[in-house]
Amino acid sequence: MQLDVYTSGMALNSGDASPSTAAPLGETTHRPRIAVVGASGYAGGETLRLLAGHPGIEVATVAAHSSAGKHLSEVAPHIDLGHDPVLAETSVDTLRGHDAVVLALPHGQSGQIAAALRAEDPEVLVLDLGADHRLESAEDWSDYYSSEHSGTWTYGMPELLLADGTRQRDQLVGAREIAVPGCNATAVSLALAPLLRAGLLDAERLSAVLPVGYSGAGRAAKQHLLFSEASGSASPYAVGGSHRHVPEVLQNLRRATGRDGQRLAFTPVLVPMSRGILAVCTAPVDEGTSTADLLAALQADYAEEHFITVLPEGVFPSTGEVAGANTLRIGAAVDHRSGQATVISALDNLVKGTAGAALQSLNLALGLPEATGLTRTALAP
Amino acid sequence: MQLDVYTSGMALNSGDASPSTAAPLGETTHRPRIAVVGASGYAGGETLRLLAGHPGIEVATVAAHSSAGKHLSEVAPHIDLGHDPVLAETSVDTLRGHDAVVLALPHGQSGQIAAALRAEDPEVLVLDLGADHRLESAEDWSDYYSSEHSGTWTYGMPELLLADGTRQRDQLVGAREIAVPGCNATAVSLALAPLLRAGLLDAERLSAVLPVGYSGAGRAAKQHLLFSEASGSASPYAVGGSHRHVPEVLQNLRRATGRDGQRLAFTPVLVPMSRGILAVCTAPVDEGTSTADLLAALQADYAEEHFITVLPEGVFPSTGEVAGANTLRIGAAVDHRSGQATVISALDNLVKGTAGAALQSLNLALGLPEATGLTRTALAP
Amino acid sequence: MQLDVYTSGMALNSGDASPSTAAPLGETTHRPRIAVVGASGYAGGETLRLLAGHPGIEVATVAAHSSAGKHLSEVAPHIDLGHDPVLAETSVDTLRGHDAVVLALPHGQSGQIAAALRAEDPEVLVLDLGADHRLESAEDWSDYYSSEHSGTWTYGMPELLLADGTRQRDQLVGAREIAVPGCNATAVSLALAPLLRAGLLDAERLSAVLPVGYSGAGRAAKQHLLFSEASGSASPYAVGGSHRHVPEVLQNLRRATGRDGQRLAFTPVLVPMSRGILAVCTAPVDEGTSTADLLAALQADYAEEHFITVLPEGVFPSTGEVAGANTLRIGAAVDHRSGQATVISALDNLVKGTAGAALQSLNLALGLPEATGLTRTALAP
Amino acid sequence: MQLDVYTSGMALNSGDASPSTAAPLGETTHRPRIAVVGASGYAGGETLRLLAGHPGIEVATVAAHSSAGKHLSEVAPHIDLGHDPVLAETSVDTLRGHDAVVLALPHGQSGQIAAALRAEDPEVLVLDLGADHRLESAEDWSDYYSSEHSGTWTYGMPELLLADGTRQRDQLVGAREIAVPGCNATAVSLALAPLLRAGLLDAERLSAVLPVGYSGAGRAAKQHLLFSEASGSASPYAVGGSHRHVPEVLQNLRRATGRDGQRLAFTPVLVPMSRGILAVCTAPVDEGTSTADLLAALQADYAEEHFITVLPEGVFPSTGEVAGANTLRIGAAVDHRSGQATVISALDNLVKGTAGAALQSLNLALGLPEATGLTRTALAP
Repeated sequence: MQLDVYTSGMALNSGDASPSTAAPLGETTHRPRIAVVGASGYAGGETLRLLAGHPGIEVATVAAHSSAGKHLSEVAPHIDLGHDPVLAETSVDTLRGHDAVVLALPHGQSGQIAAALRAEDPEVLVLDLGADHRLESAEDWSDYYSSEHSGTWTYGMPELLLADGTRQRDQLVGAREIAVPGCNATAVSLALAPLLRAGLLDAERLSAVLPVGYSGAGRAAKQHLLFSEASGSASPYAVGGSHRHVPEVLQNLRRATGRDGQRLAFTPVLVPMSRGILAVCTAPVDEGTSTADLLAALQADYAEEHFITVLPEGVFPSTGEVAGANTLRIGAAVDHRSGQATVISALDNLVKGTAGAALQSLNLALGLPEATGLTRTALAP
Repeated sequence: MQLDVYTSGMALNSGDASPSTAAPLGETTHRPRIAVVGASGYAGGETLRLLAGHPGIEVATVAAHSSAGKHLSEVAPHIDLGHDPVLAETSVDTLRGHDAVVLALPHGQSGQIAAALRAEDPEVLVLDLGADHRLESAEDWSDYYSSEHSGTWTYGMPELLLADGTRQRDQLVGAREIAVPGCNATAVSLALAPLLRAGLLDAERLSAVLPVGYSGAGRAAKQHLLFSEASGSASPYAVGGSHRHVPEVLQNLRRATGRDGQRLAFTPVLVPMSRGILAVCTAPVDEGTSTADLLAALQADYAEEHFITVLPEGVFPSTGEVAGANTLRIGAAVDHRSGQATVISALDNLVKGTAGAALQSLNLALGLPEATGLTRTALAP
Repeated sequence: MQLDVYTSGMALNSGDASPSTAAPLGETTHRPRIAVVGASGYAGGETLRLLAGHPGIEVATVAAHSSAGKHLSEVAPHIDLGHDPVLAETSVDTLRGHDAVVLALPHGQSGQIAAALRAEDPEVLVLDLGADHRLESAEDWSDYYSSEHSGTWTYGMPELLLADGTRQRDQLVGAREIAVPGCNATAVSLALAPLLRAGLLDAERLSAVLPVGYSGAGRAAKQHLLFSEASGSASPYAVGGSHRHVPEVLQNLRRATGRDGQRLAFTPVLVPMSRGILAVCTAPVDEGTSTADLLAALQADYAEEHFITVLPEGVFPSTGEVAGANTLRIGAAVDHRSGQATVISALDNLVKGTAGAALQSLNLALGLPEATGLTRTALAP
Repeated sequence: MQLDVYTSGMALNSGDASPSTAAPLGETTHRPRIAVVGASGYAGGETLRLLAGHPGIEVATVAAHSSAGKHLSEVAPHIDLGHDPVLAETSVDTLRGHDAVVLALPHGQSGQIAAALRAEDPEVLVLDLGADHRLESAEDWSDYYSSEHSGTWTYGMPELLLADGTRQRDQLVGAREIAVPGCNATAVSLALAPLLRAGLLDAERLSAVLPVGYSGAGRAAKQHLLFSEASGSASPYAVGGSHRHVPEVLQNLRRATGRDGQRLAFTPVLVPMSRGILAVCTAPVDEGTSTADLLAALQADYAEEHFITVLPEGVFPSTGEVAGANTLRIGAAVDHRSGQATVISALDNLVKGTAGAALQSLNLALGLPEATGLTRTALAP
């Protein structure tokens, strides 16, 4: 019998861009059991929110650190898993015995736990929402982080088209250690990679200014994150190149182009919204480069990609259009007067920027249809 | 073959409160075809957003008035139906031939269109998101609206428990003309009805003050709805009893208690958020009435209701916990010093207050599981 | 020589309602020296913001506790005093030798410091922005606060008209210990007092629901005050009568009417704005009471009051109209259908609710024109 | 008698940067009479808000177009002028006989009115808040505006330091036709000019991305400006170089450097705040350029400027720090990894970006102390 596969209540579109060859969902008798660590934070919470709507996964364990012992409803009252679990301690004891484990932990901890779990079960899939395993180069790591490099896991950005013509997706199918990308890095990398692959931008003079929402700063109580401090104000931070997403973006651009030497100025600006990243990227272009050229390059790389929309000429994305959805929307234009291109991408930092990306990679790793549990419909207004 | 029915990616809970005896979804070969009118407004748009995730419905026609001719992506870029329809004119020609039609029209128009459609197909289900058919009494109507009473349709509030012990749900199963309730009316009616049925509140001195979000005011461009006007300000409106949701609430309370004479002061206050209604209801109580009494009465009426959560003593809802979800959360307390009860309910005006309620009733009317396409998981932060 | 007195750049209106008989400003050769404690919090910061524009006061010392040693520009970059003082420790040593001292301290500390200062200088004026000295009854205090009653200072609400026909203002002229009222208490007391004096409301069934801004919750970093938690949500708190402003309001109403027995339900609701309180008060009224009656009573008590505006029939205030100004705006209406009155007042919690009220009382106490340094013009949009 | 001059309640600082040689305020017996046109819009409204606190000006006439006949309190309830004028029609009849006239009109109208007024009184000071008279080059005008060039008036940016070492201020003293700069143009021009004068930036690869508040878009009711549309979203506009502030910036940079050839990419982004512009400017720099170099150049040009603050190394401005104040705050840094400088300025679009700038120039033109009626203290939180 022909099964309709419904994910998050939305039928997969024909022409779905997920090339994975997963068996139809309905015929799976065993639902993978997952443990989510960091339930009381925004990244862990968003992972649970999406899993609540994922028909192919069973949320078996929800763990936290300082919130261990509380009920999920106390830290995340908006999530309905069907039951209200007590948050378990984060330890190998509570995390063993799952098919997949999603870690939202402070720096330096994910590698240790993963190693312990893998020692017991070589097949367990571990996804790190943190930065520890994103960078390939230990030098890059020490350049930006004041700690030891934890190692390199499979980078969780399926749509990234690499210099050799393969897509990062191929590496995620069946992967067992996945480093989920940084949210800002996703917005900038996916916007710029096709244009740099096509040689359309001055790769040594890239600039990104990103109005971002406050959930990206986490749930720890800090004064500058208070509503009264944030309301009615635009506040730049990490000005001058120190943002940790920069080496990640540059690594992606190197892998996408097969070339070195990209240089990126990067300025995030906190603005009064809770979700969203608008990556406004600029770079000089040659005299003859047109808007159509930019869009053609973006279309060439992303036309088949289910979660990426390249907008028509003259149309640019707003973050409100993607709130709660696993989409990335990109617009681009050449300004002949200034001789620069402006490329703008919008995503939800918690979805396509974090938990949605995690689920997308998890689906690939476990052999489920890539879009399972993920929607392209946002919550608006 | 046993089919798992997944709605919005969330398995229906055991003990699901939807008593409808619908055939399991997976065995339905014909998906009902629906037309949605008013796609460029917030109510119509939200209906489409939810339908995008409803596995049992085919969105066949999307119509508008002044936006006819535009693509849906121009007026609602956040919605992914799988295709980008051109908005059709609103007329019997475009609306005939569907199993269900959802109308979000200005006052006075829905009855006419419904009559024309029913003349051709007596079985068509028509749902009115507007107020025209909510009131039973023509006198009530003319009291609050400056127009002629359009008639009375089946009121779309399944959870309302009536004085005779039946639930409004029973009237919605198989219904063909459904008046979707007003959002504020839903928040206040469901909060107060059990307490008035139990005789716990002074029914002649009910008061409701409702911080509400701006999407409830619609998408028409009016100065007082501008971001600059609304930002950083709390603005009361319809002060002094003229709000049109009052007769609707009173009608519900009469039907719930079997008694007359309820009196309600009602003051909505626009606050800087786009979604949400927090109905803060107060009323004098007798000396011996306790918080436990209130919660017991609420629990008695709602314990089996899938979309209503009665919170434990000392816990009160925030609208952020229900944004994007079809839930209503209620908390209550008696303040012995003042001799008054405070009952607080929170819902998302566009979901449980409008489009979610519409889908809930539509599911009942069409014989689908009541919760199809509806989630209890909200979008937060 | 006739001097034009300009306060905050705005000439005092003819018919100015401040009956104090202060000597004209221009003839004062000595500007009082003030110390402000709690500069890194919102109340202390707002006091400095207003003092920066007060021509008759010299800000001599700015003190803090945990922020001592920092420059003012680090904790309050928006304030220009003309110099950037280093925050001093809060101690008798740093606070002696001033004409006035404004205290924004945690509970229990203001009385001790004031006593020590007064022992050295009986003439020093001390203003307490905190709650310690607002209540007359030690029983009231222990009822709501879990600490010992610190004593009772002169209550800083000039406009409060008392049962004996005198105004609280009279007690503030020349006062030396002033308890600045609570912000919510100000909004509710001034809205209700004239109506209760005129016997127009059922004093035993008063209810107040107050959408409030987040700055009223202070600057301490707590999770529920984070932007991501607050954004897009209305959150009630202190539901059920435990709010500490209740005994303060009741005390004011007793003093205003000369009667006992008022009972008040009180529910504040945090909404996504940083400043503002909208006190939405309801109470049953007699059959024959009209809107005009309410407005007449309000006008009778406030017509001469510079900082209070009674709005015409049908007009109600929004908090945005008073942001940054020292004004209170009141609207009222009787709803004959419900038999209840709705009285709505709006103020800025940091200005008329805290620091503006402090300056108003300080002016009276020091013999300066009451409106010195205070404006009725708000910042909008 | 020596008079203390208090503006907006704040004493002018010693070292005040206003070189105008105005007579002390207190000795002026005649207060200039001003007419403000466009009272119901944000620019006109903000002008009135500031004038309400300007001790040296009498607001004699308030005019509007479609709002003529209404009281000021109906369109701007937050402003207290001491009286509630009826808005007059905008015509030569109502505007004649004033010392100064401030025009906030749609394109193409200011020149006509100014000419008519000047024909009657050659000495009348006219300030245009609109764009009509900002550009020197008719070609620039037709390049960006679809209308005829209205002419060139004295550009109202006192702090702009020109290539010949004089400051624009000198041209404003005694001026009679003033074109108030565009808000975005102010933020970008003042941030970049000193650095270009010092040759520190690649003038052909300038880029500015500006998170901006919604009040800059005006008060006309348009769908995209609705609260529900704007809330929770960052929305770019005028992408690709078409923004009308670009020629204005380039003109300022040419006049500041004495050189041609600057090229500027310019992308404003509407974010959910009502006031504020954060101009995030980037440009490539030479290998040896340091952050200290940038700050030194900014300090060199602005050290004596009362309303401009150059922040120390590592400190960057937020727009919340300047809301309601007439200040511009600038931070800068060189990122050696990318080889680019990031220069960030913050101002309040309605104050330093529009009405404050107008008053600053008006003071100069009328011979009043430049800072009269203007404050450096902002409203926060």
